[in-house]
Amino acid sequence: MHIVVTGANGFIGRPLVNRLARLGHQVVALDRTVEPCPGVEVVVGDIADLAVLGHAFAGGCDAAVHLATIPGGAAEADPAGARRVNIEATMALSEAAAAAGRRPRFVFASSIAVFGNALPPIVDDDTPLRPHLVYGAHKAMIEQWLATLSRRHALDALSLRFPGIVARPPAPSGMKSAFMSDVFHAVRGQRAFTSPVAAEATFWLMSLDAVLAAITHALTLDAALPEDRTVTLPALRLRMDELVTTIARHAGTDPALVDYAPDHDLQASFGAYPPLIAARGEALGFRPDGSPDALVATALDTIAKQEISG
Amino acid sequence: MHIVVTGANGFIGRPLVNRLARLGHQVVALDRTVEPCPGVEVVVGDIADLAVLGHAFAGGCDAAVHLATIPGGAAEADPAGARRVNIEATMALSEAAAAAGRRPRFVFASSIAVFGNALPPIVDDDTPLRPHLVYGAHKAMIEQWLATLSRRHALDALSLRFPGIVARPPAPSGMKSAFMSDVFHAVRGQRAFTSPVAAEATFWLMSLDAVLAAITHALTLDAALPEDRTVTLPALRLRMDELVTTIARHAGTDPALVDYAPDHDLQASFGAYPPLIAARGEALGFRPDGSPDALVATALDTIAKQEISG
Repeated sequence: MHIVVTGANGFIGRPLVNRLARLGHQVVALDRTVEPCPGVEVVVGDIADLAVLGHAFAGGCDAAVHLATIPGGAAEADPAGARRVNIEATMALSEAAAAAGRRPRFVFASSIAVFGNALPPIVDDDTPLRPHLVYGAHKAMIEQWLATLSRRHALDALSLRFPGIVARPPAPSGMKSAFMSDVFHAVRGQRAFTSPVAAEATFWLMSLDAVLAAITHALTLDAALPEDRTVTLPALRLRMDELVTTIARHAGTDPALVDYAPDHDLQASFGAYPPLIAARGEALGFRPDGSPDALVATALDTIAKQEISG
Repeated sequence: MHIVVTGANGFIGRPLVNRLARLGHQVVALDRTVEPCPGVEVVVGDIADLAVLGHAFAGGCDAAVHLATIPGGAAEADPAGARRVNIEATMALSEAAAAAGRRPRFVFASSIAVFGNALPPIVDDDTPLRPHLVYGAHKAMIEQWLATLSRRHALDALSLRFPGIVARPPAPSGMKSAFMSDVFHAVRGQRAFTSPVAAEATFWLMSLDAVLAAITHALTLDAALPEDRTVTLPALRLRMDELVTTIARHAGTDPALVDYAPDHDLQASFGAYPPLIAARGEALGFRPDGSPDALVATALDTIAKQEISG
């Protein structure tokens, strides 16, 4: 397949491009900076630039994976700038993909931020969308747009709602959920860490490997898709202190180096994720990590690989 | 109240501005062309122009009524152009309104196009949004955005889903539902008219007077608003042939001058609106026209006034 990947130089994009190329796909890697990758066509530029989009889709499009985004924290700091990427460029991108292919599969990196802060006792596929963050509203709006384009047979879209993904590199990401990755680096490195959420805070997590498997699955999934074209990815629900002790056990370090000083905003956004029943995603063949232990082991492995690759 | 009205020179905007000024409000009338109106501040320009928005909101904002839009037919012909007005400019406008006031009421002209074509046997407040038109998707996306801004206490929004509104002037409007108004002009003027929907087509209608009353009500409504900030306006459901005979009876003309040649697209979009139970709107005090006779009489009166003023 001819697959265009945006955000191709990011935490998810880089290994995804490698994996898709290894699987034999013709990959176009689009980002503001992209490292050369054997067998991959690189397009350097901003997705908000129509000329860049034209270039990226010049060879046609069997599928696209749209990862580029202005994430939660960055979008709060600059809502108008976030709108240009998350809404305007994303809509233009969807139109370019539709024009370049015959109803191409369009995999959109949505987010559990569409649910907002005031969550019911259980979240499932019927939970209404009540985004609170600018970022979450943007994701919900694009889900609606892609469902419409799918209804019109312009695209064949699937919006995957990502939970927290670990472990991102230690660099600033603009993500409000960055602490979920930072704690991996700190505990593994035997460094003191102050958790910005309470010990009993619960959230939904997925390893990078599980996310890559989900995207790869979504690209070729040949099943009746839900009318609204959304899938909340099945994720593990972990307590913050459980995450800390599991990392410490795997890394052979001391979990007592972590203390807890909940930040009001982060605790409100991430402190109390209820049980998640992602039946629709499970039925479509999407899988969470096998256990907290497996998730932590995989995430620590990702960090080790990041250090090697630089 | 200091009220900014966009689309102020339109079919709804012009009489709305007059009415609000008569009620003693300080009105800013914003449109690409605006006729002078005593006691009304006029801002001429495009809502996609940030400088124009700055000018319109320079005096503050207690409330805004956002009517400007690229309607259904025009949006299908130019989706990217429609996006710039219906999404980009509308989001910028909402941010400008939020910045100019203390949680101003923001009345948004949404549309029943958010429901799409494949309607269930009854439409009510729980009917899922499945837009099919570009225009309907844009409206659904902005509803989501305004609900988020309301949740964040930046705005106090209310999205009113308008049904077909009669009778618009005979000029081209870019609206797919233009035939609902055109039939008034033809039957009243004793001219032959070919209906682009079947005689038994059913749709939801509201007179301009009822819409103006709804907007005025929405501006000052002091009640607990629904979490998603949407109200489907209660509307009358009429059959096309019932509409024709009612107009003819009021106008004293011959309904046999209308024949029926359903257009595939219009029949799909407007041919089979099921019963509408707008309980939420009724509970909030929104009212449909009293009867088909009252609706037609009011619409004919609107046409007579347009001829005098126009």
